[in-house]
Amino acid sequence: MCRSSLIAVPAAAILLSLTHATAAPSTVNVMPLPHTVVAAEGRLPVTTKLTIALRGHDDARLRAGLARALRRLEERTSLTFARTAQAAYVVSGDAAAATLVIECGGAAAEVPVLGEDESYALEVTARQAVLRAPKVHGVLHGLETLLQLVQGDAEGWSLPAMRIEDRPRFPWRGLMLDVCRHWQPMEVVKRTLDGMALAKLNVLHLHLTEDQGFRIESKTFPRLHEMGSDGLFFTQDEMREIIAYAAERCIRVVPEFDIPGHATSWLVGHPEIGSAPGPYVIERKWGIFDPVLDPTNPRTYEILDGFLTEMAALFPDPYMHIGGDENNGVHWNANTKVQQYIKDHGLKDNHGLHTHFNNRIHAILARNGKRLVGWDEILHPDLAAGSVVHSWRGPEGIAAATALGFATILSNGYYIDLSHPTVDHYLNDPIPPGSTLTAAQQQLVLGGEATMWAEWVTPETIDSRLWPRTAAIAERLWSRQDVRDVADMYRRLGYVSRRLEEAGMRHVSYIDPALRRFAGEAASVARLQDLRILADFVEPVKVYQRGRQQPDATQHTPLTGFVDIARPDSASSRMFNDSVRTKLFEGSTEDWASIMGDLVGWSGAAQVVRRDLAPTSPRVRALDPLFARIESACAIGIRACGLLDTSEPPPKDWMAQAMADLDAAVPHDACELPIIPALRLLVAAAGSQAERAKMTPAEWRAHVESLAAPKKPAPAPAAH
Amino acid sequence: MCRSSLIAVPAAAILLSLTHATAAPSTVNVMPLPHTVVAAEGRLPVTTKLTIALRGHDDARLRAGLARALRRLEERTSLTFARTAQAAYVVSGDAAAATLVIECGGAAAEVPVLGEDESYALEVTARQAVLRAPKVHGVLHGLETLLQLVQGDAEGWSLPAMRIEDRPRFPWRGLMLDVCRHWQPMEVVKRTLDGMALAKLNVLHLHLTEDQGFRIESKTFPRLHEMGSDGLFFTQDEMREIIAYAAERCIRVVPEFDIPGHATSWLVGHPEIGSAPGPYVIERKWGIFDPVLDPTNPRTYEILDGFLTEMAALFPDPYMHIGGDENNGVHWNANTKVQQYIKDHGLKDNHGLHTHFNNRIHAILARNGKRLVGWDEILHPDLAAGSVVHSWRGPEGIAAATALGFATILSNGYYIDLSHPTVDHYLNDPIPPGSTLTAAQQQLVLGGEATMWAEWVTPETIDSRLWPRTAAIAERLWSRQDVRDVADMYRRLGYVSRRLEEAGMRHVSYIDPALRRFAGEAASVARLQDLRILADFVEPVKVYQRGRQQPDATQHTPLTGFVDIARPDSASSRMFNDSVRTKLFEGSTEDWASIMGDLVGWSGAAQVVRRDLAPTSPRVRALDPLFARIESACAIGIRACGLLDTSEPPPKDWMAQAMADLDAAVPHDACELPIIPALRLLVAAAGSQAERAKMTPAEWRAHVESLAAPKKPAPAPAAH
Repeated sequence: MCRSSLIAVPAAAILLSLTHATAAPSTVNVMPLPHTVVAAEGRLPVTTKLTIALRGHDDARLRAGLARALRRLEERTSLTFARTAQAAYVVSGDAAAATLVIECGGAAAEVPVLGEDESYALEVTARQAVLRAPKVHGVLHGLETLLQLVQGDAEGWSLPAMRIEDRPRFPWRGLMLDVCRHWQPMEVVKRTLDGMALAKLNVLHLHLTEDQGFRIESKTFPRLHEMGSDGLFFTQDEMREIIAYAAERCIRVVPEFDIPGHATSWLVGHPEIGSAPGPYVIERKWGIFDPVLDPTNPRTYEILDGFLTEMAALFPDPYMHIGGDENNGVHWNANTKVQQYIKDHGLKDNHGLHTHFNNRIHAILARNGKRLVGWDEILHPDLAAGSVVHSWRGPEGIAAATALGFATILSNGYYIDLSHPTVDHYLNDPIPPGSTLTAAQQQLVLGGEATMWAEWVTPETIDSRLWPRTAAIAERLWSRQDVRDVADMYRRLGYVSRRLEEAGMRHVSYIDPALRRFAGEAASVARLQDLRILADFVEPVKVYQRGRQQPDATQHTPLTGFVDIARPDSASSRMFNDSVRTKLFEGSTEDWASIMGDLVGWSGAAQVVRRDLAPTSPRVRALDPLFARIESACAIGIRACGLLDTSEPPPKDWMAQAMADLDAAVPHDACELPIIPALRLLVAAAGSQAERAKMTPAEWRAHVESLAAPKKPAPAPAAH
Repeated sequence: MCRSSLIAVPAAAILLSLTHATAAPSTVNVMPLPHTVVAAEGRLPVTTKLTIALRGHDDARLRAGLARALRRLEERTSLTFARTAQAAYVVSGDAAAATLVIECGGAAAEVPVLGEDESYALEVTARQAVLRAPKVHGVLHGLETLLQLVQGDAEGWSLPAMRIEDRPRFPWRGLMLDVCRHWQPMEVVKRTLDGMALAKLNVLHLHLTEDQGFRIESKTFPRLHEMGSDGLFFTQDEMREIIAYAAERCIRVVPEFDIPGHATSWLVGHPEIGSAPGPYVIERKWGIFDPVLDPTNPRTYEILDGFLTEMAALFPDPYMHIGGDENNGVHWNANTKVQQYIKDHGLKDNHGLHTHFNNRIHAILARNGKRLVGWDEILHPDLAAGSVVHSWRGPEGIAAATALGFATILSNGYYIDLSHPTVDHYLNDPIPPGSTLTAAQQQLVLGGEATMWAEWVTPETIDSRLWPRTAAIAERLWSRQDVRDVADMYRRLGYVSRRLEEAGMRHVSYIDPALRRFAGEAASVARLQDLRILADFVEPVKVYQRGRQQPDATQHTPLTGFVDIARPDSASSRMFNDSVRTKLFEGSTEDWASIMGDLVGWSGAAQVVRRDLAPTSPRVRALDPLFARIESACAIGIRACGLLDTSEPPPKDWMAQAMADLDAAVPHDACELPIIPALRLLVAAAGSQAERAKMTPAEWRAHVESLAAPKKPAPAPAAH
């Protein structure tokens, strides 16, 4: 039987090893993990008799948030709670008798602002739950925690008695959504905001302009969206609706207009402000392109001033992101007027010119009451003070920016489009333990943002790249620095993934329909289950390999392939890799048959899919090389397990041949086999059993790991 | 192994017995079945080299429809077709060389109108496909047919060579969507329009006002939607967006404002026009309620005139539906002013007053260029000529209305909210074979509408009640009267269900997430599969039984129960019932072990769900009586099969006890076991083996069927 990614999370209590001293060991299944949790005895039943009382501040946002939360709880439990004739949930004025008392200290800013008090405290006894927060933000966060705490068992639904004190570590906890490469309509944005609220994220950064699309209506310069978007853009009314929807959830909306590079779509309607003569068409491919605004042309500033002033009125947040990344300089270098301008103004080079440009934009924004945010590349000693540097290229960006006194946000390490496993993002900290940043520098680290670039996602698949991994990033930004227990993170990730699904995310539900479409008419239920096992097993290739695997892909390539159904961080593969390491190096009691069983399951699924579906499905047939690789790689692993199980030495040259065969199991159609490292370990261990007796366990482990290490260097990262 | 509803449709050709003489036997997997299909030799490959040429009329609606169709085909096949730099699919001016030639005769009305020419012809050869249509409507219909014809196999994707001539039988092929009882937002309406286009339906009838909600913005009388909707209504801008979205798909939008009854939500903001003093609150329960507009009050007509005139400007369609159903007369009877008015105006009774009211509304509509449509109850000898009667109460409505010269639409028999099997709707014909309507009467039968009343559906579940059954109703309204092969309908329904899912319908994809939520954290993959088997097996109770089973349900009851995951017309149960009948009465070669195998599968699934999930899931625990009934009913069936297999006579009293036990397997939580009739047949057959030898097969069949007939009368239908 193959491990599946739909792993059941045992309802039985698992002791949570909180690494901080203030909290007792607990069984909270909450993500982000609250700052302090003190477990108590007893439980508060959740039944149809639940009543709510409000104390203190009361407003429409609080009531709407409460209604949304309770509706989700009703849908999950199938209970119907009491309501007034006007359908309000708050039926009780009597706080002493109510099941849940909400005590809010006061209103928060209508438009959420950076640094608002988001703290809350939740106390559950067998008699009552009391949620206290200084501001509405805290109430909404506390309700999300409360919903995650509700548990069901043979006796019904209940909240465990406990006391929680909670507050965020960083004030800027964001998600960047690229709605340009692939258009993401209102419903994607709205459900993503619901998911963000669940994960206590508080900034939606909308990447609104790109080479491949200009996604916001401009009434001042309508050619921008009319000619740059294929008709796929947010009207200003729609954007106001998004901003209001976010504000209801205490989430800020920070827009990004990426200039002067990544700007092809601006130039389709306004070629006169490009650095090359044009004409321009909307870019359909992926990468870094040459079109760039002309920073020497007064008309450029006229348009930017008009447009940014218009946007400053539309977006209430005081921060405005102007991109500024990956200006490759090609068109500036080729333009003698531009180069002359650099000389005339003593700007030294293109970077100097870029800073000169940024500072003119800074002035436009400042006049509109906005602070400038830009990617790493805007950092320059001459950059106007008060700008915020958004670090994406490497961990050194944070240090460099704060050293110059700039506030900063981290996204390097949070690129969720690149298919890294959750753990990589989770342990990536804006201020890691042992950071050498000064206290003053640390004050300038506002937080971080997960970045969802959209070359390879559609409205159908985007949730599977967003969730649940972004919840782990949210925990990194919310929870204490010392919350770093990876096993416990993965345990809680299973719970939060269910809650996200119940809140409308489609990161799981899209899989089976996509597999049915992939498999075609002839696929039986059993073969679809086999395909599902394989889809849960493989992963999309990492970093920027997909573009290399599918170099002809454009904005029009349908993203309905097997790679789009496969997801990052395969749970079944991860658990297999863990099992192999534990078995080899930590003497687990799991027997070889169980480890072999996983391989037999995957290999068997691949075998029957190849046999039964390829003859009737053009798409399964096209994937045959991938399924063949799964079969052969698993066969090698099964052989290695057999040798290890019987302590039989392998035939001469077997190890070399097996390693070479595994090397041949390269990605196909942008899907890779994440158990290859574990298989290499198995082969290395099986092939060096003779040496084992002569070595200490540590020596043997080092020997096996060295034999198993892959020969090829990992490819370098490229564009975003 | 249990039969599942996710039955694989064999890709191997199944001869289609077209019952009309003009078409050769064919393997078309198209629904609605085209008027004439002539198969030919060969196939046209569908590859990335596909090119399109347009000939004749060309407009934006045609191009947009073509782009949508090709995008769906790209997503299904994973092929990327050629595009121009401006991303248009029509890349070829050379019709001779193009893969697909579209030849359109001319523009159709911008706003679709009743009776537009919707015909098309499609000819596919090994070299080229040519789609010809007099109007854009036909082109869009032809593209839907073409998409359904594309097939995949070991050699890739292709269209089979054939010639199709197609046109609709009825000009009014509608779907009524109740967006009042449970609010259905934009995205539900839009994806439903996509599904309607796929099924060649051409009227979306929106039921916009009800006791439980007033769902359209009125600028003239804003208290209507402000106080009558809980904030859940379509703005006029949104409604224009819906109308435009529908028009793009050549679908008309006919609004319904249900008056004078079913009008509680009108009276929340305007109690002064009610027939009782009020005050009124939005109704939360289901049924027929007393509130009714006061037809004796001049203010009633002022408001209706202002509102309907406003709506007449918003909705371009020349038909306007005013409901008119189920006015129970309670408030009219209790109101002396109303009764006096009846006397004063010589109106005889409430029905006369209702007609008097209708004719005043008729005048308002006429002044606005609209024709009045209303439910059965508007029919009256004095009803203004030119009105259209929408028949819902019984097949006699059509005859009665047309006898009085009124045009008519059939919905009786198309109530898809009542969980009937597809076949019941499919064989229900507005003009059935052998109809006694005169030719003149038949001319007045415009068509029909599937009706989706929304007491028991949410945006999450509505698709599962809409699809795929509505596609079979669409075939009844589109295809020839003699297309009545039920087995072939079910075969093609499997295909069209896949295409509907690919076009965005969620009638299948909602199931597993809903089961995960239902089962809770502790459910393993295997147990979820068992639950799925059971969810595919049971059915929601029929007709109006759900309201009787769940009498306390309101608009706020969360519809996330097992009954909401179960769907009408369980395929696994239907196939079991067919197998049993065939085995007992037609001597099929299927052995008893296979029939028993189904029962063992269901019973086993119920057993492990009860054992493994009930202890950890409050919701599974609450359903234990249902799962226990499945177990015991299947056990009876297994015993009966065993007796039949061995020709062993049962113990004395066994049959009576088994029948009594089956009688006890009544619905629980609104779920019923659709195999009960087959189980009763098995028990009756097993219990009367001794008689078999003494009877002819026909006599024995009659004997068994009479023994198996249920004792209880079916409940009578109630409100809509």
